[in-house]
Amino acid sequence: MTYTAEIIAVGTELLLGGTANTDAQDVSKLMSELGINVFFHTVVGDNPARMKQAVEIAKSRADIIITTGGLGPTFDDVTKQTLADAFGKKLVFNEDVAEEIRGFFEKRLPNAKMPENNLRQAELPEGCVLFENGVGTAPGCAFQADGKHILMLPGPPRECRAMLKSCVEPYLKKLSESEIHSHNIHIFGLGESAVEEKLYDLMQNLQNPTLAPYAKDGEVMLRLTAKAESKQHAEELMKPILKQVQETLGDIIYGIDTDSLENTVINMLKENNQTLATAESCTGGLLSKRLTDIPGASKVYLGGIVAYSELSKTELLGVDTELIKEHGVVSREVALAMADGVRQKLGADIAIAITGIAGPDTDSSGKEPGTVFIALTTKDISICNQPRLFYDRERIRTGAANNALDMIRRLLSPL
Amino acid sequence: MTYTAEIIAVGTELLLGGTANTDAQDVSKLMSELGINVFFHTVVGDNPARMKQAVEIAKSRADIIITTGGLGPTFDDVTKQTLADAFGKKLVFNEDVAEEIRGFFEKRLPNAKMPENNLRQAELPEGCVLFENGVGTAPGCAFQADGKHILMLPGPPRECRAMLKSCVEPYLKKLSESEIHSHNIHIFGLGESAVEEKLYDLMQNLQNPTLAPYAKDGEVMLRLTAKAESKQHAEELMKPILKQVQETLGDIIYGIDTDSLENTVINMLKENNQTLATAESCTGGLLSKRLTDIPGASKVYLGGIVAYSELSKTELLGVDTELIKEHGVVSREVALAMADGVRQKLGADIAIAITGIAGPDTDSSGKEPGTVFIALTTKDISICNQPRLFYDRERIRTGAANNALDMIRRLLSPL
Repeated sequence: MTYTAEIIAVGTELLLGGTANTDAQDVSKLMSELGINVFFHTVVGDNPARMKQAVEIAKSRADIIITTGGLGPTFDDVTKQTLADAFGKKLVFNEDVAEEIRGFFEKRLPNAKMPENNLRQAELPEGCVLFENGVGTAPGCAFQADGKHILMLPGPPRECRAMLKSCVEPYLKKLSESEIHSHNIHIFGLGESAVEEKLYDLMQNLQNPTLAPYAKDGEVMLRLTAKAESKQHAEELMKPILKQVQETLGDIIYGIDTDSLENTVINMLKENNQTLATAESCTGGLLSKRLTDIPGASKVYLGGIVAYSELSKTELLGVDTELIKEHGVVSREVALAMADGVRQKLGADIAIAITGIAGPDTDSSGKEPGTVFIALTTKDISICNQPRLFYDRERIRTGAANNALDMIRRLLSPL
Repeated sequence: MTYTAEIIAVGTELLLGGTANTDAQDVSKLMSELGINVFFHTVVGDNPARMKQAVEIAKSRADIIITTGGLGPTFDDVTKQTLADAFGKKLVFNEDVAEEIRGFFEKRLPNAKMPENNLRQAELPEGCVLFENGVGTAPGCAFQADGKHILMLPGPPRECRAMLKSCVEPYLKKLSESEIHSHNIHIFGLGESAVEEKLYDLMQNLQNPTLAPYAKDGEVMLRLTAKAESKQHAEELMKPILKQVQETLGDIIYGIDTDSLENTVINMLKENNQTLATAESCTGGLLSKRLTDIPGASKVYLGGIVAYSELSKTELLGVDTELIKEHGVVSREVALAMADGVRQKLGADIAIAITGIAGPDTDSSGKEPGTVFIALTTKDISICNQPRLFYDRERIRTGAANNALDMIRRLLSPL
């Protein structure tokens, strides 16, 4: 059978907009990996009456209720009491847990007196499975009642995430017979609605596996998901669909089950034993920032120059003043000269340079925001693209960096 | 009267854990500023039956229902239809909106054919108030029915945020009799709980105005909010509290009603007529990226060097090889030499340099991740700090950039 889970996040700070509900995201990710359907998230404040209402609704439509938050020591932490009441359970004081809480304090604050309210965290629903908290003091727990599974996790994201991995995953894996497997197909160079249009017929008729598109930061991801009794069978179900998607979309797919364009580029540089240097004008370091987000980038990424002023283009990159005078700083010629400049300075195999106008204002030459030239050079090759970029400063910069990464990817892709 | 709002976020990707529900956070923040209570958030997938269920529940307990997402062009965008059905409204094709959508495409992709499904975005509930989307194609809208206000906003966070400001805030302000005004106090250099401890007595006794802390990306923001019948009265209520906060916290307040550290720094550079150059190792361009996030940064930010490899430190910044041999690349001495190097290369008034280990691995010298030196030099001054940074790669890099910005801010602050 396929289980349905519902997530209830408890915390007034979420309703005030102080923080995003990342716990629900983390729980959902795990459910999706385990093949458990999640149809609703609810957020409710630290209020017993409203929490009871949310629990009653969840109880009426889900097999598994997972709460996050409200397990702490203070008077407004009411999750355990509310859940226990809703399922006719008593809270019982657990002396082992109390001992651990005392030990936790003694170790960290040997000279301080532990506030007595901390022992409230040792009160747990009778007959529950204890979820130990390796990162904080509040333990989580799970119990069964009225044919439902109720799981309670702490609210601080790090504690919640650690407990998902160490306690919730093994607990729920025992319940599930069928497995869910998926592949993420990463696409750059076509928008979400255009991708969907190309795959419309295929997507309409799919039941298992399913194929769903997600757009983010100028990229599109397709998630192909199959449910089967074994990983092998799931893979068999997905294989022909994956092939069809690949045939339909071709080389705009930049990776399958990869992390990001920058990750793909760093890996390709390593595989091809190539080094990279960057020269950025309008992206102002965004490209180098993204490349160096990847641990180990230093093995292939030598460095870069953020040539934000004209002086920095001539001084640091050796771009000819006459060339700038003739073509303007935002030009194909200057982009190519910037790439060659940084490549030679750093002795890199590949260099990429970006010059353009991110806006919001047009530049003195009257060029519109979104006018961006991206040059890629090696000792044998010189390419310069002018991608179509628009909307606002942030998206023009992100789009320019995406296109630069994609140019490197295409250079290093086997034909 | 005090209104109660409920937020329904629509999108299967939220239930799969692909992204956190930041829209609900953004909507909640605005509600909190407007003095509107939010008691529940719900997330539901792109499924008409379940969305209807969520709407019915919200209708039974809230005065205002705000949805985010599901306004796009594809067949799984069903928010408008579901909401219209739930309140007995028809969807009407709006030719003006259709014309704008066509124009949007024509301007951006003059040679491409617009996918026909885009015109679904021009279907709107009869008699609704249109919320124009300045950032994307899907408009939002609001209508009244059964004594409730229903507002629909697009899902992409940027579009949602822009529409909250330009359309939702004025729409809801009209409903409310008293005005809400607030000041945001931006703090760097002390954690949230330490800030709260310093202000504990003050915060405990406040009713109107209220004072609430928010922590984000290594910074703390305090929001001071007053409710009154006029802006002037609200300001009078806030003035003495603001003064007390400023006296208590002193120069760790870097700005009031400002946007970010980088914004503050760019403004101060402009005011003081000073130019800046950067040299980055472990932050890999993050600092220059953040500086150039600010439109108009080019007036004061000359450029920078991302010296990710040792070669780039000697070649591009002129750091002495012997100095690196003696002290290691991650050292006070090299940080200062990097700053002086880039300052001289670009003829900048102020230079800042960062060298350190972002992790996850220790470097070959055995230095731990989080070891970071930040040097600031002018022709008269040389300062080098070693801030306390820890946790993970991302937080170490963000923390290093924050500290660098704060050093510039302190240099330029009037004594």
